[in-house]
Parts: sequence; C-alpha cells; structure tokens
Amino acid sequence: MGVPTARSGSTGLDPELIRQARIAGEGVVKRTPMVSSTTIGDRIGGKVVLKAESLQSTGSFKIRGALSKLRDLGALAHEGVVAGSAGNHAQAVAFAARHLGVPCEIFVPEGASIAKAEATRSYGATVRQIGETVDAAVAAARSRADETGMAFIHPFDDLAIVAGQATLGLELVEDVPDLRRVVVPVGGGGLASGVAIAVKQADPTISVVGVQVDACAPYANQPVAAGPITTLADGIAVKAPGHLTRPLVDAWVDDIVTVGEDEVADAMMFLMERAKLFVEGGGAVGVAALMAERVAPARSGVTAIVLSGGNVDLGVLPGLIRRAETLAGRRLILFVRISDRPGGLARLLSVISEERANVIEVEHVREGVDLHVRETGVQIAMEVRNREHADHIVAAVRAAGYRVSEPTPR
Amino acid sequence: MGVPTARSGSTGLDPELIRQARIAGEGVVKRTPMVSSTTIGDRIGGKVVLKAESLQSTGSFKIRGALSKLRDLGALAHEGVVAGSAGNHAQAVAFAARHLGVPCEIFVPEGASIAKAEATRSYGATVRQIGETVDAAVAAARSRADETGMAFIHPFDDLAIVAGQATLGLELVEDVPDLRRVVVPVGGGGLASGVAIAVKQADPTISVVGVQVDACAPYANQPVAAGPITTLADGIAVKAPGHLTRPLVDAWVDDIVTVGEDEVADAMMFLMERAKLFVEGGGAVGVAALMAERVAPARSGVTAIVLSGGNVDLGVLPGLIRRAETLAGRRLILFVRISDRPGGLARLLSVISEERANVIEVEHVREGVDLHVRETGVQIAMEVRNREHADHIVAAVRAAGYRVSEPTPR
Repeated sequence: MGVPTARSGSTGLDPELIRQARIAGEGVVKRTPMVSSTTIGDRIGGKVVLKAESLQSTGSFKIRGALSKLRDLGALAHEGVVAGSAGNHAQAVAFAARHLGVPCEIFVPEGASIAKAEATRSYGATVRQIGETVDAAVAAARSRADETGMAFIHPFDDLAIVAGQATLGLELVEDVPDLRRVVVPVGGGGLASGVAIAVKQADPTISVVGVQVDACAPYANQPVAAGPITTLADGIAVKAPGHLTRPLVDAWVDDIVTVGEDEVADAMMFLMERAKLFVEGGGAVGVAALMAERVAPARSGVTAIVLSGGNVDLGVLPGLIRRAETLAGRRLILFVRISDRPGGLARLLSVISEERANVIEVEHVREGVDLHVRETGVQIAMEVRNREHADHIVAAVRAAGYRVSEPTPR
Repeated sequence: MGVPTARSGSTGLDPELIRQARIAGEGVVKRTPMVSSTTIGDRIGGKVVLKAESLQSTGSFKIRGALSKLRDLGALAHEGVVAGSAGNHAQAVAFAARHLGVPCEIFVPEGASIAKAEATRSYGATVRQIGETVDAAVAAARSRADETGMAFIHPFDDLAIVAGQATLGLELVEDVPDLRRVVVPVGGGGLASGVAIAVKQADPTISVVGVQVDACAPYANQPVAAGPITTLADGIAVKAPGHLTRPLVDAWVDDIVTVGEDEVADAMMFLMERAKLFVEGGGAVGVAALMAERVAPARSGVTAIVLSGGNVDLGVLPGLIRRAETLAGRRLILFVRISDRPGGLARLLSVISEERANVIEVEHVREGVDLHVRETGVQIAMEVRNREHADHIVAAVRAAGYRVSEPTPR
C-alpha cells in the first residue's frame, strides 16, 4: 500500500508541492473555463458548473502532471523521458518534453487509437507500438528507461504527478463561488486524489465524489475482468490502482460511484448537443453519474463536474449519433416489398417524401426473405421528427398498398 | 438603404444602447470564454484566440439581441412575441420570451432542422411550420404579428438587436489584451456590425473582417442564387442584407471575405478535433477564412475569431467525419474477388487483420461485376493509419493471391 516519501506523509501532499506544480505549468497549462449549464442544472435539479478541462492543452488534464513531473526531475530529465500510454498521458508527456526541449519516447499498445498515436507523433515524440495492452506498453517503457538512463514517467503513481493534477483543484476553489461538491472521474487515481487534496486543504467541508465506469472499477472494489477491456471510457479503464494513489483516494475522496456504457454515451451526446463541448467517454463520467442519479448534486451551493478530457476517437461518433437519434425516435427503418420493375422504388420513395421524412439509406434485400418472383425487398432508413411522425409514415406506406414491417423494435 | 432613427445616426449606434443591452442580458447572457489555441496559432502563424460564443445560452449569440429587443419593447411585448427563423434566432426569442414570461410563437420553414424546432419547443414556444424558405416563415410571422398585436422580432434588421449583438464586442475589448483584429461571421449583418461598432468605439485602429460563405455572399457583392440554398453554414445564408444593417456593415466592417464548403467542413473538424469545440458551420467561417488564408492574422498583437454558434445539426457529422478521415488517408476501400465457399471471407479478413487495419464495413457485390461462377466480390472499408499503411495492406492482400482493386481514388 502507500509508500511514504520524505516529502509527504503516506496519505498527504505538501501544499508547497502543488504550488511548485503550478509554477511548472505557467505559460502552458490553461486556466480552463467553468461553463454553467442551465440545461443540466434543470435536469439534475441543482446548481451545476462544468470544469471544461477538455479545452486544456493536449486535450486533457494530463499536461498538468507531466509538466510538474518534468520540473521535479530537473537535470534528471536531460537524457530524455519515456512513458507507456494509449492516449492522454502519451500526448501530455510528448508535449511537455518538447516544451522543455528533451527527447521523448512513447510506447503504445498495438491496438491503440491511430489518431492519438498520430497526435503524440505530431508533438515530436518517437512512438513505438508494442504489446496488446497498456500494461505491456508501460512495462516496455520502464525497461527502456532502465536501459537508456531516460526518466520513466508513470501516468499517475507519483507524487509529482498527483501534485500537478491537484492544480485543477486549486482552480475550482478559486473560480467557483460557494463550491460544495466536486464530481471527478477516477482512472489511476492521480486526478481524483490531487483534486480532493487541493479542494479539502482549502475547505474540508467540500465533498468529492469519484466516478468509475462499470467495465473497470477497482476503486469501487469491483472485480476487474482479465483481458482487454472495451469501454467508451477507455481513458479511465485502469485495472490496477496505484501504490501511492490508492491510499490517497481512500483517504481523501468521500465516495466512489460507477456508471454503465449507455450512461456514458448519453452523457457524451448531452454534452455535445446541449453544452456544445466535445468530451471523451472517460471525461464525461461525472455528467453520466449525475444524470443517472448515482450521485446527487449538493443540496445547497454549487456542484462542479470535472470534464477531464476531450480526446474523443472520431470513429465512435457516428455510432453514438445513430444511437441517440434512434432513442429520440428520429430514426425509422422499414422493410417493404416492392415490385421488381422500373419505377417500383421511385413510387415508394415518393410516398415517403410526401410525409416529409428524409431517406438516409436504401438497401435491397433479397436473400433469406420470402418474396414473389417479380418482387424485391428494400430496407429504408429514414430521419423522422418523432415517434408520431414515424407512425404516420408507416400508415401512409400501408395505405398506398405496400406490405411493411419494421425490422427494429421501437 | 439606412433608415435613420431618432436615437442614432444612419450609420451609428449610441453607446448607451449597447450599455442598455448589456443590462438586458444580465443573469442570462454568459460571458463566454476566450480559448487560446496554440495549434491554430501555429498553423496560421499569429497569435489567435477564439471567442467561444458557441457556449452561449441557447447555443448562439442570438440571445444577446433577443433580450435587448425585448427590454427595448418593454410593455409592447406583453401581448407576446413572434418571429420567423429556421434556427438560432428561433431558440433565442423563445428562450428570452420564457425568461420574461411572455407568450411566443415561432414560424419555421417546413424543411427546417427537426432538432432545432424541438429545442425551440422545449423553451416553451409554439412552433408553426410554414412555407419552403426562411423568407416565407418570416413573412408569415410578420402577418401573424399584424393580426394579433404580438410584437414581431426581426432576426437582425433592428437597432435594438444590433445593440444586443454589440455586447459581444465589448467582451472582446475587455477580455483580449492587445486585440488588433476581429474576424466575425456575416449573415444578416447584425452581429458583424454590432461587434465592429463596439470594438471601434473603444479603439478605432482594431480591424474587423467579416466572413460570408460562397453559397450566399451578398455582403461580398456576389450574386445570390434563386431558390433554396444548401450550405453547411446555413445559419448565415441570409439572401438579403438589412436596410439598417447593410449601411452599418459598409461603414464599420473593414473587409468582407468568403469561404467555400470544403473550407467550412475543414474548420468544423479542426475545431472539434483540436479545439474540442462543437461549432456550427456558420460559426466556423472565421476559422475557415484564416485557415484558407482569405484573411491574415494581425501582424502584431492578437486576432480574435468569433465562433458565433454551436447548434450543429447532428445529421451532418457522420459525413464530415468520413470526409476528414478519408482526406487524412485513414480510410481504405478495397474491392476483392473471393471464393464463394465457406471460409472465403474469413481467410481474406485474417490477412487484413494481420496488417492491423480495422474493418468497419463489408459488403458483398455481385451485380454488374465480372465474376467466375464460384466467386463473389466483396467491398471492404477499413480504418488505417495513413497512406503508407494502406499501401502495405494492398500489397499484403495481393501477396496472399487475391485480385484487388480500389474503387475510390486516393
């Protein structure tokens, strides 16, 4: 468990370290805005502000810890730095190394997001693909550091990293009048413990609630599955809590709650549609927890939700949008039998267009369906206004003499 | 041309009106954050900040003008207000009316975005669909106002509206040290003229550049096509400049430039991927103009780009993402002939997976292709790292004995 250091107790962090971390971030770390949201407040029933850390340099809070650690290393970083990470830590270490003019190597697992690896390269780091998991990449980075004399930068289990992430907590205390509760994502525990310590050193009566994702929730004492984990919140899918951060989280974070994948998807869409913020799954779990009532807003005063990162893998968006539009009743899929002659499809589509639905996909389906010889099946995906509109369209197509079925349950 | 009022000259605006507009917005209008972007600054070659007005209440600057106008109307608004709009103005007037507790009717054209009409309804307005174009909806709103005694709220051609939008200019002056240039979208001209007036009343040496979209650029003196206009920047596709706003824009805005659809798409994706901001097409034209070098950043000092709104129609996103990934070389589509027996497809896919490409779509194609009897064609869409990676995959599939063609030019 906790490894006490010369500088801090096993479950403490010297405020001076946080002050040093703040200096380390000067000129690079942005004071990210607090965004108030009446929509989310109305929905959740409290006064809620969002800490838009997704707008931070490199797209996440990780730059705070990386700069703090590099300052802490001082001359020990001159040979260069090396880290293992699939995403935000990689970008942060690469950016920080470039800022300080030291070489940087990053080990990423082979299945890592292509876009994130490219972003890390764009900051000047050498990126090496190795192994199947983040753990394997971290182990490779550690060996490389031992071989070369470069400094190994752990993503969270390091007091200098925790002190860096804690600077976000200072901003909450300074920028949110009447702050009563903070809701923060928990991955390795560096951000959650750092923020909790900074906030409670200023006012111990502010509560701090950490949020994990069901797929990987060791801090909530849930068993962690073996093998690769698939979750929208991949940025916080850390299987093993840190030796340093676990006792810090236990001592300083009041409660840990968890959310499921659908709740994360809903929160991401909500932030995009209503708050106009692009927030990654792991960064959106705080909003998910409040929307799903896993945590209540403070009864009086303000609740701040930390949106910890914005590095969304673009590939997940089309699926998220489809799901949201379907749930909102804005997608209708019909399977219709039409005459397999010229004009058969055109006639059907004109019935649909009279009902003002927007056709987005037409597919001919002939295999495995019982059809007459001069008949063909078409599956039509449409954008519609809502469920009532969908019902109107089905009725109109039937009234025009077509046999219709809906392959998807609504 | 300009209709002088008792309160201002034909090409002026009394600073007192802007002060009143600011009071009208208190408690509702957010002081939206300035977001610095090193990425965009590096790319454009200047010091650039983004005015993230996309994070404004109702998702756009329009709430500023709506509240200003309702305050200006005073008791004249008690019977209610009525407006015609397909989008941002509709949401703003509905929100402002609810805030002041007066009834609100909004006329939207029949083809209007379903999501935007729903958002307007969610603010408590009665939404009526009428006509094919925004012009028709505005005309219907005006008639309704004449019949009922409700107050008609024009989207831009009104000094109280211009004064409201001008409050954004005050924030630029107050929040951006060393402000030298402002780049602002131009639709009806209310925002552009208001911002230009506020900024230049504070410092006449700050330059203001307006941006229109090629598809609809009357302020750039380009002929405007008849009929409906299709553009990603639909929020600023206003065909007829205002009687009030045209002379104001002519007098106060230094230059008008235009951007094309692809440039708007690039800017939206850039803002999403790098700045983590969700900005609608009309709100992103300023970034588009700088990225496409239609306007240069200020040679010294800071250039502020106004991101005027965030009400993106989610339906456009999947297409934008596909386009961006394709341009970045992250999509590969191959047409391959395989054996039409069990295992034929599995064998091909294992060759591809060994090259670590991520298959996102498989389609069997048998029509209109010359195939042997026991052969079938498959079209496979993949996510790849970059063009070199794509070339590797093609070579590997060929080396495994398949006949391969790429149906899309790369």
